[in-house]
Order: sequence, then structure tokens, then C-alpha cells
Amino acid sequence: MSQAQIKLGAFLMGSGHHLAAWRHPRAHAAALDFQHYLRLARTAERGKFDSIFFADNLALLGSPELASRTIGGEVLDPLVLLSGLATATERIGLISTVSTSYNDPYLLARRFASLDHLSGGRAGWNLVTSATDQEAHNFGRERHFDHAERYAHAEEFIDVAQGLWDSFEDDAFLRDKASGRYFDPRKLHTLDHQGTYYRVRGPLNLPRSPQGRPVLVQAGSSEPGRELAARTAEVVFTAQQTLAEARAFYGDLKARLARYGRHAEQLKIMPGISPVLGRTQSEAEDLYAELQNLVEPSLGLGLLSGMAGGIDLSAYPLDGPLPALPESNAMKSRQALFIELARRENLTIRQLYLKIVGARGHCTLVGTPLQVADHLEEWFREGAADGFNIMPPLLPEGLDAFVDQVVPELQRRGLFRREYEGRTLRENLGLERPAHAPRNG
Amino acid sequence: MSQAQIKLGAFLMGSGHHLAAWRHPRAHAAALDFQHYLRLARTAERGKFDSIFFADNLALLGSPELASRTIGGEVLDPLVLLSGLATATERIGLISTVSTSYNDPYLLARRFASLDHLSGGRAGWNLVTSATDQEAHNFGRERHFDHAERYAHAEEFIDVAQGLWDSFEDDAFLRDKASGRYFDPRKLHTLDHQGTYYRVRGPLNLPRSPQGRPVLVQAGSSEPGRELAARTAEVVFTAQQTLAEARAFYGDLKARLARYGRHAEQLKIMPGISPVLGRTQSEAEDLYAELQNLVEPSLGLGLLSGMAGGIDLSAYPLDGPLPALPESNAMKSRQALFIELARRENLTIRQLYLKIVGARGHCTLVGTPLQVADHLEEWFREGAADGFNIMPPLLPEGLDAFVDQVVPELQRRGLFRREYEGRTLRENLGLERPAHAPRNG
Repeated sequence: MSQAQIKLGAFLMGSGHHLAAWRHPRAHAAALDFQHYLRLARTAERGKFDSIFFADNLALLGSPELASRTIGGEVLDPLVLLSGLATATERIGLISTVSTSYNDPYLLARRFASLDHLSGGRAGWNLVTSATDQEAHNFGRERHFDHAERYAHAEEFIDVAQGLWDSFEDDAFLRDKASGRYFDPRKLHTLDHQGTYYRVRGPLNLPRSPQGRPVLVQAGSSEPGRELAARTAEVVFTAQQTLAEARAFYGDLKARLARYGRHAEQLKIMPGISPVLGRTQSEAEDLYAELQNLVEPSLGLGLLSGMAGGIDLSAYPLDGPLPALPESNAMKSRQALFIELARRENLTIRQLYLKIVGARGHCTLVGTPLQVADHLEEWFREGAADGFNIMPPLLPEGLDAFVDQVVPELQRRGLFRREYEGRTLRENLGLERPAHAPRNG
Repeated sequence: MSQAQIKLGAFLMGSGHHLAAWRHPRAHAAALDFQHYLRLARTAERGKFDSIFFADNLALLGSPELASRTIGGEVLDPLVLLSGLATATERIGLISTVSTSYNDPYLLARRFASLDHLSGGRAGWNLVTSATDQEAHNFGRERHFDHAERYAHAEEFIDVAQGLWDSFEDDAFLRDKASGRYFDPRKLHTLDHQGTYYRVRGPLNLPRSPQGRPVLVQAGSSEPGRELAARTAEVVFTAQQTLAEARAFYGDLKARLARYGRHAEQLKIMPGISPVLGRTQSEAEDLYAELQNLVEPSLGLGLLSGMAGGIDLSAYPLDGPLPALPESNAMKSRQALFIELARRENLTIRQLYLKIVGARGHCTLVGTPLQVADHLEEWFREGAADGFNIMPPLLPEGLDAFVDQVVPELQRRGLFRREYEGRTLRENLGLERPAHAPRNG
């Protein structure tokens, strides 16, 4: 590569990432409106972002009372939404969260391969293992899978999906009208997977997709999450609060690659950044204060309770310290981040939830476009990030502001592309197209 | 309703329905090309069709050798494809086959509700139970579920899906920025389904969709298939060869509705029709002969063997009679249709497969636009059909020909709309929007 540049993803949520964003007077508060998402996707594409990304939940999270004050009741299936966006955009990558715990590998491999074909090679899969009992209840279970067990599922699930994506060799399809051969059966490979959790014969009824395989993204930062990422992920989304922590995470994860025969360029690490932008520092602070003031205590406390492992924090004084938390079966690394954040900054419960309502533990930057560009440049140059997953606190204006004010500054500094390098998400991310590697047949 | 009119669906397959269509010089032989499907969808919309429809298989069917001579290796996930088409069309209904045997009710209810939101109320679900062991092999099973058992699954699956679609009352979502209430929690209903096959707590994390519930379509014509349809279906696709058979089926199914408290207008019966069109009879016959001549015997025999219940017919003389077939666990009603067809017309194995390579047992009409219009009018007026699922043998030209030549003739006769009646698939089909009916909570 000539000169390393920052990669940028746009992590989109209905009205923005701030928990109270939808209540802001300028927020688009209708999370099912396709035109809203289309406008956002095209803005990201105009800004030469590598990708847009949607998270997902397989349940209405929290009590009805708490959920009713969030946009959590309006969550479109992200693959349906991205399929709709695929045909109305040209260059932007399309990344969807899908859980391995409550999906089937044949169906899922097929959906992502289909999106990769539909979009001309722009699909990415953010693999998660789900985190809550509420999701388990929608799939016939009383309790969510144990953390270790669900990562064991995920390890095998990925192998099955990758095997299915390689059912056909790249040049298997002839479509030869004269001879009557649509594909060459010698270039078909039947997976015949017989594993611990899955038995899947294959093949997939789809040709190898434009990217060979959709880009594999992960966000788990626990020990099994890091190991899974080191073996299989091509992009890692992560929540990091400080440069020191981010560098440590970056170094740790890159160092794990070698044991799987991989090199540093095969995995892009992209911390989440939520930029609260203003033309001046005080304008940015005013916007942040507007958003923070819209958060009712019960809602902030509910978010913190849920993300800290399901413990009910309402029994503790809001202006007292965070109590000792039992070990979580949910988002282990996020719980650890909260505990460390509260300790380091000596935060009360109220101060802690106010720290996370903006971006759920991701780094929030309140400042001018130049300050945000400085931060991104520093983390990039200091070995803390290959790029960033930008989490606008308020939509649509937060993405407009980033594209119109921060992107040009990064381009002036030579840190970000002025035009897409390629046609596929892989080409833009600088990831090689994986060679066909059938596991059987 | 002022005057009853014919409903029309366009049942689309990559190169057309004829087994050898892809080999025809004028066929579009690239079954993954989105622009091809977009052109077809817009043609159907120009022709004021109620819907487009895609079938599906969850496996590469048949041996690699046989499959390699069909387009069966290029089958996009139909919900991905329809989601892409949803945002590029305005009025056409979007119906996808999805199997209850190898899907999860929460995920599936959410995908269809998402498509209904994305398309502004144009989603339909063709519920099937799958038919082959090859599909079972991709989902951890040695054998496909027994016919009775998979219909028992389907009965419960539908109840779960309908319950989830009614998680919220129609006016539950307030999105009230001032009070901070996104939805009214009193209008949220938790399903808490505890059944024989499924335990699903709910609620769905989506508002009730524009149609209330996506339109429910079915195609099973066996005894349990008819009973399931009578209780739950709003559209039935069916394969009928003769007017007498079609009238008998129509009468039988409509008569079953009363026992579920339903009336005749709540279920539209739409037999499949594959029109091979020519400006003259001999031009139509020439086209049909061109297509038939492209079918190699092993391929025709393979299709017949597979659809007749998986028995290997290659052991029998091609020009001898159809042997007695063991009872099928696959498409029971289709097997019965083939047996009856061979008996009535005294067909050899070769003659029988040549009868079904065009449309897999659906009625093939070879003739002029006037002849086809006459046929549709007769079946409609004689109580054999509420509409038709049009299966063009060769694409794109077969759909162009129907829209440009048959549709105007039906319109002249007052038998078909000149403009869409409504915005949603339900409105165009003349189906009521179901009232919200929570099963719990």
C-alpha cells in the first residue's frame, strides 16, 4: 500500500446513538422510514466511507416501561434494510449484525452470499453471539447460552458458513447454452460438515460471491472474543475510552494473528467514536448538554443496569459509588470497561450512566471538526486504530456534519481517500479476496 | 365489490419456468442479475399485476450432474431479492416462499414485518413445509420431517407469527418528543407462546406493519394442506390441469372456510398458468417445440423422478408406462396429479416428463393471446379460479408478451383492472386488513 489511510465506517441508529437522541427537536424520530436510511447511506457514500453498519437485537430489550422511552421497539431486520439500500447505492459497504446463537448457518450463509451478489460485492457480517436472556426467550430457551458455549458455537458456525461460501469454485459457472451445462459439476464441492453443534451437508445453491466471502466483522473483546477475531475476523469494532487502552487492545489483537498464520494487514481494528460536533467548542458542548438533559434518570440507570450485566442498580444511591458487580454472562468486556471507567474517574452511578448514554461505552468526542480530526489522527498514528466506526449522536445532522467538516480535513491531511479505491468492500478496506478453499469434496 | 375481476400474480424464475428455458437463444441466462429482476418487476407493475412471486429451495436439488444442467445453482434468497426490489418499485406485491420446517418463527415474523414496513404494505409470505431430504441434510437431519408432522409444525408456526405481528396495537407508537414516550406500553402485548413445537415469549421489536399482517399464501393441496389453507391462507397457488379438476378444488377449498368462520372472499384461489404465446397458433407451437427440443431425456426424467416422490425412474423403459409409485413424503398432491395425468392421457414416461418440463405440473397453454384470455375468462367465470399465477416459460419475453397482449384483452373485457385499486397488496387483492387480535397480554 502506498500510504496507509484511515478506514471509516458509519454506525447508524434510527435517530442517532445518543439514548435520548430521538427526543431532540432536530432528530428524525421515525426509525422505520426507508428514505431516512437512504439519505444517510448516500451521505456516507458521498463522504467516501467504507461502509454503513447496523447493530441488531432479537428482542425488545428492558421492561416495557423502559423500552417505551427508547426507539428499541422499531428495529427493522438489518439484512432486509441493507438489501433495500444495496440496490439504491453504488459503492458503500453494507454491514449487518447477525447473531450466531439464534440463527442457522445454511440460511445465514445464503442470506449474506445473496446480499454480496445483489450489491456487487459490498456485504459484511458483524458476527455477535447475543447477550441477553430476553433474546433467549424468543427462541425457546429460559436462559441465554453460557459465554464460553456461545463462542464455541460461533467458532463452528463460521467454519460452516465459510465452507458453504466455497461450495463452488470461482469459475464453476459456464452458463453454456450450446452444451447445456450451467455449471461444471467437477467444480462443485460438498461440505459434508459433521461437527459438535452443526451437521450441514451443503452445497450452497449459489455461486461464490463477488468478494469470495462477505467481509467478516466482530465486536467481542473478551478473551474468547479476541481469539475468535484473531482466527477469523477481518474487521474488529471495539469500544475504547483512552489512547492507552486502545493501543493495548490493538497490540494484543494484532499479536494474536501470527498464531493463525495471519498478518497485521488482514485485520482492521476500528474503535467506535461518537463525535458531538460544533463550529466552536462551546457550540459542541451546548449540543451535548441538550442531549444529556433529555435523559431521565430511570432510563439512564436502566441502560447501565442492562449493559453492566443485568443487575438492578436502582437499589443503590444514584449519587453513590458503583457497587461490586457479579460476573456477567452478557457483554463481558463492556462490563469490565464500565468498572474501570468508574474506578479511574471516581464516578457515582449517575455520573457513570451519563458517561455512557451517549454511545454505550464508546469514546465520545465533544468538540470542533479540527479537534475530532486531531483525535482520529493521533489514534491512527499512535497504533491504536486502523480506522474508526463513526457513531453520530444525532441523525441526520451528525453524519452530515462529519462528512462536510471532518472528512475534508482528513483528506487535506492525506489521511483519507478522495475517491474509492475499488468496487467491493474488500477492495476499499484493503483486504485480499480469499482464495477458494473447499474443506471437503 | 362492484364487479369481480381477475387477480394476477407473476411467478418468476430466472430464465423462465420451462426446465430448458435458459438454453433458449433469447433467454436471459444469468439468474443472479438484479437488473433482470428489476425489469421483470417493473413490467409486472406496468401490467398492473397484483404481485410478483419467487419460489425457493433450501438445497441444490438433484445430483450434481443433473443440477449442473439447470439454473438450480443460482437461487438468491428470495427475501433478499424482494427487499432489493421493494425500494425500486411502488405498487407491485412482493411474495416470497419461506419454509416453516427450516426456519425460526421469531426471525421469520420479523423479516416479513420488516419487508412489509420497507415496501409500504406489499409483503406476502408463501408458506411451504419443504419437500426433500436434500434440504433436511442442510439442517442437521438425515430425513425430512414426515408430511403430517411438518404440517403440524406449520399450523403452530403460523399462530406464533401472527401473534408476534400483533405485538403492538396499531396506534401504539406515539413518538412524542415532549413526554419522552416512544410508544404506549399499555398497547404492547407479550405473546408468551408455549406450544408443542415452539416456545416464543415475544414481543416483536417492530410496530404492527402497514398491512396489519403480511398476506398469507399457501400452495399445498394435500388434505392437511387444504385444511391449513382453509384456516389461515388468504391466497392459494395451485396446480390444476383441467377445468373440472380446478372447479372441484375451488369448490372443496371454499367450502372448508365456513368451519373456521371465514367467508369465500377471504381466500383467493389462483391456479398456475404457463402461457406459451405466439401471434398465431403455429408461432406459439413453434416456440413450445423449440423449448421442448432443448430438454435432454436424463434431465426430464430426473425432474419427473424428483417430483414424483424421489423414485428412480431410469430403471424403467422411457417409452413404457409409469410404474406404480410408492406413497410420497414430498409433494403429495403433485404426485397424485402426475399419476392421474398419465392415467387419463395414457402417457408413457417420456410423454409424461415432456408434459411437465414446461411448468412442473401446472397448466401449460400454447396459443394466441386471445386463446389465453378465453381460457382465463372461462376458468374465472366457471368458478375454477379467482385469479391466476402467470408462469412465463421464457424470460424476459414471456412476461412482456403477456403484459402487452393478454392484459389489454382482459381489460377490454372488463375482467382486469386498468389501475391499482390501492396502495397495499391487500387492497389490490380485495383482502381486508386484519384487526389487531393479541393472543395474550
